[in-house]
Amino acid sequence: MFDRELEKRASRSIIEDPKVDIWRVEASSAAKNTRNFIREIVDNLDLQPNPDKPVIALSIGDPTVYGNLKAADETIDAVKAVVEEGLFNGYVPSTGHQDAKEAVAEYLSNDGVEVSPKDVILCSGCSSSLEHCITALADGSKNHNILIPRPGFPIYRTLAEHIGVEARYYNLIPENNWEADIDHLESQIDKNTAAIVLNNPSNPCGSSFSKEHLRNILEVAYNNRIPVIADEIYENLVFPGEQFTSTASLNSGVPILICGGLAKRFLIPGWRLGWIIVHDEFGVLDDIRKALNSLSQRIIGSNTLIQGALPAILRNTPQSFFDSLTNTLALNAKVAFEELKNARGLTPFMPQGTMYMLVEIQMAKFPMFENGLEFAKKMMEEESVFCLPGDCFAIPGFLRLVITVPEELIREACQRMTEFCNRYYTH
Amino acid sequence: MFDRELEKRASRSIIEDPKVDIWRVEASSAAKNTRNFIREIVDNLDLQPNPDKPVIALSIGDPTVYGNLKAADETIDAVKAVVEEGLFNGYVPSTGHQDAKEAVAEYLSNDGVEVSPKDVILCSGCSSSLEHCITALADGSKNHNILIPRPGFPIYRTLAEHIGVEARYYNLIPENNWEADIDHLESQIDKNTAAIVLNNPSNPCGSSFSKEHLRNILEVAYNNRIPVIADEIYENLVFPGEQFTSTASLNSGVPILICGGLAKRFLIPGWRLGWIIVHDEFGVLDDIRKALNSLSQRIIGSNTLIQGALPAILRNTPQSFFDSLTNTLALNAKVAFEELKNARGLTPFMPQGTMYMLVEIQMAKFPMFENGLEFAKKMMEEESVFCLPGDCFAIPGFLRLVITVPEELIREACQRMTEFCNRYYTH
Repeated sequence: MFDRELEKRASRSIIEDPKVDIWRVEASSAAKNTRNFIREIVDNLDLQPNPDKPVIALSIGDPTVYGNLKAADETIDAVKAVVEEGLFNGYVPSTGHQDAKEAVAEYLSNDGVEVSPKDVILCSGCSSSLEHCITALADGSKNHNILIPRPGFPIYRTLAEHIGVEARYYNLIPENNWEADIDHLESQIDKNTAAIVLNNPSNPCGSSFSKEHLRNILEVAYNNRIPVIADEIYENLVFPGEQFTSTASLNSGVPILICGGLAKRFLIPGWRLGWIIVHDEFGVLDDIRKALNSLSQRIIGSNTLIQGALPAILRNTPQSFFDSLTNTLALNAKVAFEELKNARGLTPFMPQGTMYMLVEIQMAKFPMFENGLEFAKKMMEEESVFCLPGDCFAIPGFLRLVITVPEELIREACQRMTEFCNRYYTH
Repeated sequence: MFDRELEKRASRSIIEDPKVDIWRVEASSAAKNTRNFIREIVDNLDLQPNPDKPVIALSIGDPTVYGNLKAADETIDAVKAVVEEGLFNGYVPSTGHQDAKEAVAEYLSNDGVEVSPKDVILCSGCSSSLEHCITALADGSKNHNILIPRPGFPIYRTLAEHIGVEARYYNLIPENNWEADIDHLESQIDKNTAAIVLNNPSNPCGSSFSKEHLRNILEVAYNNRIPVIADEIYENLVFPGEQFTSTASLNSGVPILICGGLAKRFLIPGWRLGWIIVHDEFGVLDDIRKALNSLSQRIIGSNTLIQGALPAILRNTPQSFFDSLTNTLALNAKVAFEELKNARGLTPFMPQGTMYMLVEIQMAKFPMFENGLEFAKKMMEEESVFCLPGDCFAIPGFLRLVITVPEELIREACQRMTEFCNRYYTH
């Protein structure tokens, strides 16, 4: 083949090479701006475990990894029945099958919350729900920003920056059960703030906000006329005695897009069944409903087998399944907390729910480590225990523990961490 | 609650209302630019069937609707086994499980094509594959455009315009089996052209390009240094005696992103298992591989049950299943073609594959109808037969017939269409 249009070539960032006639294809800025912060940090650590100790990974936020937490029989049976019936192999509406939407509305309706099927949009996992919501509300071309929690899960920033939207942090306060610093939150708002993202219960904090605190946050949103994106993927995943409050139950007047799904509470994150609930007390989200509908058409929703099974999954899974899960998580959290509060130089923060616990490293007591990353890396090298460094969640000097692993492994991991700390702790 | 910052309010497009204190939330331009062209046209038609005749919908591109075309037993068994085993409930890498990638590479490797698992990215359906590819290559902020076929499936335009990229048509020539008009294609290229989109075999045309024609298109791409996105979701779905050629088999030197999936050939469009194959003979797509990898992280890939079943689906589905499907489609196409070539004022174009046939309406013979939309609407009103107007595919004055419905329905529908035409045909 031959070159006819050298002029065009020159403008297409081609590497001229007289021998091998090649060209370079450059990725879009949107793609380049789509970063995986956890991968960037972890890959950079170049982790090497101690070959004499089996690795215990407290880093993977997937409750299915160790096989101790299994989906409910009702969940499995529901999907098997749909596969056998063969009636859910074709397309359904991009925003979800009507029966599935009705089941979600019913599942989420309870004291103080009334969800209608028309308020439900099904998505390919909660990440896709968040992507739709951020993309619908925030506009890179208008220099918009969204407010996201620090510490917080990095997907919000990934999704915002992909579309050229600034992700701006508001602080959570460790000693107040990771509640938002309301003054700081409000100080971050400007005329280009398109949404406030809440995550409750929270990854990585494990906090579950009180009604009153949620009201305080929503008041800021209301006064400043900022809609809220509430990531409630850990809904009801709170320990015995703790309370989960959905933002939808507070009648705050704030328009809220609530994101959730089956991933965590039903222990099937790979199935990619997420949802958005459009909570719109005053009817101010008509434009956004249309937008979410339009955005759904890009990838035509989530797997239909799971949609077909959704009514049975949501209606038949017994309370005992959920109780067993939260009891296990509460027990594991307690084990980790008790073990680590005796580790010199560590400060564990007891969670109220979810699958995580944050632990502060008193860096001043470990002068041999430049930062938390080095601490985590060295702990892997010597103890074969790995926790994600807080840097992954924008809170350097902390570690995030995943507490879904079997109790004996949590205990063993924490004991190794304690030994590691005792070895390096410096007065 | 109260208003503290009137200044901020004023800049946030708030409708001031002294009684009900509301505000309006505006959707992003990206969301507003995400259009469903088929829905816009069809909803606008306000269709009313003839109550005395049962509706035959030749409009829905979903082969599962009438129940005559079923997924293979091997496909169903594969998913059932994975659901029962319970080992695919958790997360897998965003770009897909390694075993599933290997199975796709093996499935697509044959004479002249060698696909490596590292070239495979799994996506949530082929729409998601296309979204990734267009977003990776084309940059709205750089005023990029992509070239798309006319007639063609509207998703390319939807995805491009969502990210602010111009979708620019190149013509296909009906009387040349819907081959691309090469001169027109080349004339549409400018320095901002980021990709040429091919669809082969084609929806809505039903064409399957010859090796030579594909080479001609790829030569244009090569000479102008434009990468190609090849939508091959209908791969191998060609009638007996016809040939499917993958762009990957031609050693053209052009970097190509091939999009495909299980939807059509395996009759499970709702399962949302798509893929991208990075075909990169000269190693010029390193940036794009990274980009596709990054973009995958936004929604974390496709359903894991289907990924787990993919090796068995791709390896065990017998050739007889595919043969039976293409035989049925070929028969239905022949029935429709034979019936409609006797309809006065219609010109059917015999497809070579896929699930569709285009039919030209000789509008001059039907002066009572202003355009093809009115023709289609009236045909529904009188004959209860609905086909999508060509306007949905950027070719007004045509109809697209879906040929997956049972033979007797195709025949009945075409007979009603013939009667309709005979009734209105004007010399």
